[in-house]
Amino acid sequence: MTAHQAFAQNPVFIPGPTNMPEALRKACDVPTLDHRSPAFARMLAPALAGVKRVMGMESGEVFLLPATGTGGWEAAIANTLSPGDRVLAARYGVFSARWIDLCQRFGLEVEVLDTPWGEGLPLERIEAALRADRTGRIKTVLATHNETATGVRSDIAGLRRAMDRAGHEALMMVDGVSSIASMPFDFSGWGVDIAVTGSQKGFMLPPGLAILGLSDRALAAMENARLPRTYFDLKDMRRSMAAGGYPYTPPVGLIAGLAASVAMLEDEGLAAVHARHYRLAEGVRRAVAGWGLSTCAAGPALASDTVTAVLAPEGCDANAFVARAAGTYGMAFGTGLGQLAGKAFRIGHLGMLSDPLMLAGLATAEMVMADLGWPVRLGSGVVAAQDFYRGALPLAAAA
Amino acid sequence: MTAHQAFAQNPVFIPGPTNMPEALRKACDVPTLDHRSPAFARMLAPALAGVKRVMGMESGEVFLLPATGTGGWEAAIANTLSPGDRVLAARYGVFSARWIDLCQRFGLEVEVLDTPWGEGLPLERIEAALRADRTGRIKTVLATHNETATGVRSDIAGLRRAMDRAGHEALMMVDGVSSIASMPFDFSGWGVDIAVTGSQKGFMLPPGLAILGLSDRALAAMENARLPRTYFDLKDMRRSMAAGGYPYTPPVGLIAGLAASVAMLEDEGLAAVHARHYRLAEGVRRAVAGWGLSTCAAGPALASDTVTAVLAPEGCDANAFVARAAGTYGMAFGTGLGQLAGKAFRIGHLGMLSDPLMLAGLATAEMVMADLGWPVRLGSGVVAAQDFYRGALPLAAAA
Amino acid sequence: MTAHQAFAQNPVFIPGPTNMPEALRKACDVPTLDHRSPAFARMLAPALAGVKRVMGMESGEVFLLPATGTGGWEAAIANTLSPGDRVLAARYGVFSARWIDLCQRFGLEVEVLDTPWGEGLPLERIEAALRADRTGRIKTVLATHNETATGVRSDIAGLRRAMDRAGHEALMMVDGVSSIASMPFDFSGWGVDIAVTGSQKGFMLPPGLAILGLSDRALAAMENARLPRTYFDLKDMRRSMAAGGYPYTPPVGLIAGLAASVAMLEDEGLAAVHARHYRLAEGVRRAVAGWGLSTCAAGPALASDTVTAVLAPEGCDANAFVARAAGTYGMAFGTGLGQLAGKAFRIGHLGMLSDPLMLAGLATAEMVMADLGWPVRLGSGVVAAQDFYRGALPLAAAA
Amino acid sequence: MTAHQAFAQNPVFIPGPTNMPEALRKACDVPTLDHRSPAFARMLAPALAGVKRVMGMESGEVFLLPATGTGGWEAAIANTLSPGDRVLAARYGVFSARWIDLCQRFGLEVEVLDTPWGEGLPLERIEAALRADRTGRIKTVLATHNETATGVRSDIAGLRRAMDRAGHEALMMVDGVSSIASMPFDFSGWGVDIAVTGSQKGFMLPPGLAILGLSDRALAAMENARLPRTYFDLKDMRRSMAAGGYPYTPPVGLIAGLAASVAMLEDEGLAAVHARHYRLAEGVRRAVAGWGLSTCAAGPALASDTVTAVLAPEGCDANAFVARAAGTYGMAFGTGLGQLAGKAFRIGHLGMLSDPLMLAGLATAEMVMADLGWPVRLGSGVVAAQDFYRGALPLAAAA
Repeated sequence: MTAHQAFAQNPVFIPGPTNMPEALRKACDVPTLDHRSPAFARMLAPALAGVKRVMGMESGEVFLLPATGTGGWEAAIANTLSPGDRVLAARYGVFSARWIDLCQRFGLEVEVLDTPWGEGLPLERIEAALRADRTGRIKTVLATHNETATGVRSDIAGLRRAMDRAGHEALMMVDGVSSIASMPFDFSGWGVDIAVTGSQKGFMLPPGLAILGLSDRALAAMENARLPRTYFDLKDMRRSMAAGGYPYTPPVGLIAGLAASVAMLEDEGLAAVHARHYRLAEGVRRAVAGWGLSTCAAGPALASDTVTAVLAPEGCDANAFVARAAGTYGMAFGTGLGQLAGKAFRIGHLGMLSDPLMLAGLATAEMVMADLGWPVRLGSGVVAAQDFYRGALPLAAAA
Repeated sequence: MTAHQAFAQNPVFIPGPTNMPEALRKACDVPTLDHRSPAFARMLAPALAGVKRVMGMESGEVFLLPATGTGGWEAAIANTLSPGDRVLAARYGVFSARWIDLCQRFGLEVEVLDTPWGEGLPLERIEAALRADRTGRIKTVLATHNETATGVRSDIAGLRRAMDRAGHEALMMVDGVSSIASMPFDFSGWGVDIAVTGSQKGFMLPPGLAILGLSDRALAAMENARLPRTYFDLKDMRRSMAAGGYPYTPPVGLIAGLAASVAMLEDEGLAAVHARHYRLAEGVRRAVAGWGLSTCAAGPALASDTVTAVLAPEGCDANAFVARAAGTYGMAFGTGLGQLAGKAFRIGHLGMLSDPLMLAGLATAEMVMADLGWPVRLGSGVVAAQDFYRGALPLAAAA
Repeated sequence: MTAHQAFAQNPVFIPGPTNMPEALRKACDVPTLDHRSPAFARMLAPALAGVKRVMGMESGEVFLLPATGTGGWEAAIANTLSPGDRVLAARYGVFSARWIDLCQRFGLEVEVLDTPWGEGLPLERIEAALRADRTGRIKTVLATHNETATGVRSDIAGLRRAMDRAGHEALMMVDGVSSIASMPFDFSGWGVDIAVTGSQKGFMLPPGLAILGLSDRALAAMENARLPRTYFDLKDMRRSMAAGGYPYTPPVGLIAGLAASVAMLEDEGLAAVHARHYRLAEGVRRAVAGWGLSTCAAGPALASDTVTAVLAPEGCDANAFVARAAGTYGMAFGTGLGQLAGKAFRIGHLGMLSDPLMLAGLATAEMVMADLGWPVRLGSGVVAAQDFYRGALPLAAAA
Repeated sequence: MTAHQAFAQNPVFIPGPTNMPEALRKACDVPTLDHRSPAFARMLAPALAGVKRVMGMESGEVFLLPATGTGGWEAAIANTLSPGDRVLAARYGVFSARWIDLCQRFGLEVEVLDTPWGEGLPLERIEAALRADRTGRIKTVLATHNETATGVRSDIAGLRRAMDRAGHEALMMVDGVSSIASMPFDFSGWGVDIAVTGSQKGFMLPPGLAILGLSDRALAAMENARLPRTYFDLKDMRRSMAAGGYPYTPPVGLIAGLAASVAMLEDEGLAAVHARHYRLAEGVRRAVAGWGLSTCAAGPALASDTVTAVLAPEGCDANAFVARAAGTYGMAFGTGLGQLAGKAFRIGHLGMLSDPLMLAGLATAEMVMADLGWPVRLGSGVVAAQDFYRGALPLAAAA
């Protein structure tokens, strides 16, 4: 038996699905609507337009698929590439690895740049690989903006510069699943060709919607792509949407929720949303330092503002941490994935959270570590975070 | 301007998504839960077991994919077939045609048996085609149990007999999207290998969940299938589920809702659910006859209990009917699809409906037809349905 | 066993609580908020201001009490009268009778004008009684604007003229429980001093909120009123509200819902709301005529637009009608109350309803009457209502 | 501008209304139901029976009124007393004072025992007063079990012993608004005659329901009570309930919610519910001690397990604390009431809360105090609470 009250809804601290604002849950919970009626078209338009603004798309198109982010990756690949095409991708965490696997299942040739976990996109090696591709066999470069497994943010603007320096015309595809709507994302400024995210992260909605932004170049690439596709066929989708419809039953509730989410984010202001995520994340990082622990992210510039992977002290089992937090205190943290299994736990700090709720997470983490005999002093992290959150106030208040 | 009150929620009479019971909407609307925790596994198990009972599966496995029924078709094909495989399929409506198209996009060779719309599976021609396939090139037979476009139910038990008579070992795949959980479905008794449905039909949930049942034979066929797949890879899914998880973020709310839906259906009793659908449908058919109109379904044995496609009188525009019903009375009916565009409208009568609500639909349809000058007398259908519903009562009450 | 599906939510046809729009239910379902914080005051203000507009109050104040309409009556009496005061009231239905009883329990002397049920305020007798009150002992005149038991609307403008002709200064208190927000109500124009309603009628909210409007004269009368009161003390309430608060825990959800309700009504337009209620009601009256039955209301000018009391044919039991409608078809109609018990059933047609839903009610009523062997032909009422609703369309559409 | 995200729903730490479990909010949010139908009676019965169990009533009856706790007090008095009756009551906080005021408004003679705030029922003085009442003029003794203003719990078992020692037959009425369903309450064991609470405290529901338990003696006293009453007349209510109904529109949603609440509490176990409240409260008390502050409650035996009134340090403004917590961190604490205005703030810790959420409240309180320059060290309270919550675990787990 555990000591927590079964029906008390603690916030979750997993890196998505995130805690959902009540207003968005209500926006998603709609009675049945005829998706072939004009009412649906009226609901879809603001969702599409809103995503463009959140992603920073000055042109191009947005697609919403009843799927997860993984489905979004598949749609990105299947709609733009053909058998025999070559893909360049770095592997520095579980999610970047999975995207590579997807390409390989399609029979594509993937040039993999293995990179230590905790680091981000190896820009120099990417530039070198692109320069070496004299015949232009590489059709696309894959980048995971925010590696959810390691809590590392990569430099997409830097990737654009590297590709430009190499003078290579490959498409740039960015997995923004755990960054978009939480951290700055400049689709057009960075020259992104396809960005992929899901409803259940920064948009704070239930899972079930893959969200893609495609540049005009990516839309053009769809014309000649020959990988097989049906469910994820964006040409079909585009044709249906032009007629105010959908190629199959759309997830009406999630689409209504997405429009509401964008309105909520824009009401706060995208810059304020990003600042809030930085603020929450920095408090967590201060707490981790207060505990005397370190993060998987190899340096401050790499630290993600949506998830922090905390390395367990030598000899301590990170899985035990996650299990005890859930079992004893009713609180969900993320486990370490892949290489980090048992070695790290992850604190998600994106979506609907507040300073007080974050402190609940940190105070609970301390109790768990103390329970497990980890060499961490109660209060050491909480106080560091309190100090930061208090000091950060004037800045926020000045806005 | 229309005369109806914008916020009055009339029931919909489209053939899915259906009207949703309040209790199921609440069951789907769950706060965020860690899908890597045991709590998720506890939620998943009854949903899977419940679907097996509803489909009549004595063995085999159920899979739940964050997708629509179309995604379910794709999973069925991609997980069991290999390049060069041959498929046998009849085409007798928009949805059977789409499944064929999906196979062709995968490069499969499809032997298409074109059949007049309004009829069902051409069992004799299928048997003949199977007999002709001496070398066993046909790996699977596709059947659309209930053609949502035409309101026609096909004879799946008959298909099994035909296949057995031909002594052919092809897999049998059945699109039960608009039949399962509303009309009798006997997976094991009929020797189905893969059945596909979605959450938004007989299960009365929001869209977003493709539901598949696979027989042991189908599971075995997955081992050697070589069509490319990632998102829809059921082997990955099976492996994750065995570990209590999911290969990507599961649609937790829909899964919780599915378990609740099964409980609700079983509380009523599956036989009672089927009887209720027959009852509602027969009332509609009496009304159509009362109007002096006919259905697309070519005969009583073919008539679907979930949707009725009503042929507009000569010279009358069925699209105008649907538009006026929506625009003037705030009521959604289905348009004619494909060949039936403009020639038929469809009345959906599955999911959460009652005699009184059905009568609201029929009375409104009469007003629309009168408004459009169709040769239909007000009350002619309503009274026929009232008569039937009253008369059917003792039978139902006797149960 | 009944034939209807337990979970199918048919609309109700009782004269309140009404069917509630989804948006209002969501507006009421709020997480806990500190009612001593400015957030509560911000929520309260638009609710109060909105009620003033809906009631047509150019001055005076609105009070919201956690109670039902009966509590509202008690507040009206307890806050303005003193022991020994005399009240003039007509009794023409269950609800007007109850208000009289309440006064008598307070020890007030009530001059009761008994009036046949089916008729409304006896204006001439009231005028005479006021003229006879030379010494001004009558402090207040009670009027039930819409007798929910009989479906009779009284003439409040006429009451004002009668009081003015008599030159009497009594306060005028109006029970608008089942009229306000559905039928025209002109607080200031009619010279109403206290109007009482509840959340669960025209405002389409859950029950639990008594809503009172007080004129400046009524507010002044509060100063010297000596009947005992605590919970319903409006002076306490006024003092608390002036400080942004409440004398006890306010029903925050209902207050939030009330603001949303007013916004919804005003979005439709109050005139349109009234027209819609007339429209729905007139269809019901045509149906009653089509059935060959008559209403309790003694003439067209008396007919309520929110509820119709239908007299059962000689020898037929109206209670059996209500019981069978509920038990067999899952549909709620109102029973006859008081003198009308067993002799009439009531059809509520206020709040969230549409033509199609109204037709569901009428079609079901026909089935019930047929089941019971009443001399009513199936379709006879439905067709009359369809005819009216269709014909009324152009008028509505012209708006 | 504040630094918190407007849509992040922090828990509240006011002493009611409490944080509400999602399941209870859903249980309250019901579509309209005919409250004159048997369905309502089926909903009411378990709510009534459940309250009896939670209150520890072996006999007597429960009444549910659409009102707040204040309305419950009024019903208790109005239904059992007559003009000229004498009441004995101690005054030791705002809420005990209000009940006295209510009696005085009814013209009752109240013998008031003023008691220092921070203390509880003065049992010896009560006993003395009862002994002095030789002629039995005192008809009832009022007791506030848990003074929400001071965070003091009184000894009701002791009150029973004192009354018994005095051999006095007065009724015993207990305000259990902020104790029942959170702290042990033994209606029959303590010989309580009337207990009053509301829906928005331990039952974790929205406000709007006054809940009363009456002993057989109290029921008997109703027969001859002559104070005026209508809305709160329990004889009317009893008569209506005996016929499966209600004297006016019942708050159907709250009644459904109440039944669900009892089920939830009993699922946890009432002893476990009480232990959880002790546990949460003790953590708060340790934190207060860690801060070097003291509580209003004059000693450990008086400390309430549902609310703690914390005395601000000399020269510090408790209102500033509450304002800054709300304005800067989006967190609601209770202000000091009456004598304690500006001198104390209150931490509510009843209803749906968990250790982690409680720590969020304590950590935030520390930030606020630091922001205001109070002499409190960050972490000093959090660590004390963490220590207690961790240490308390084995005990809880052993259960």
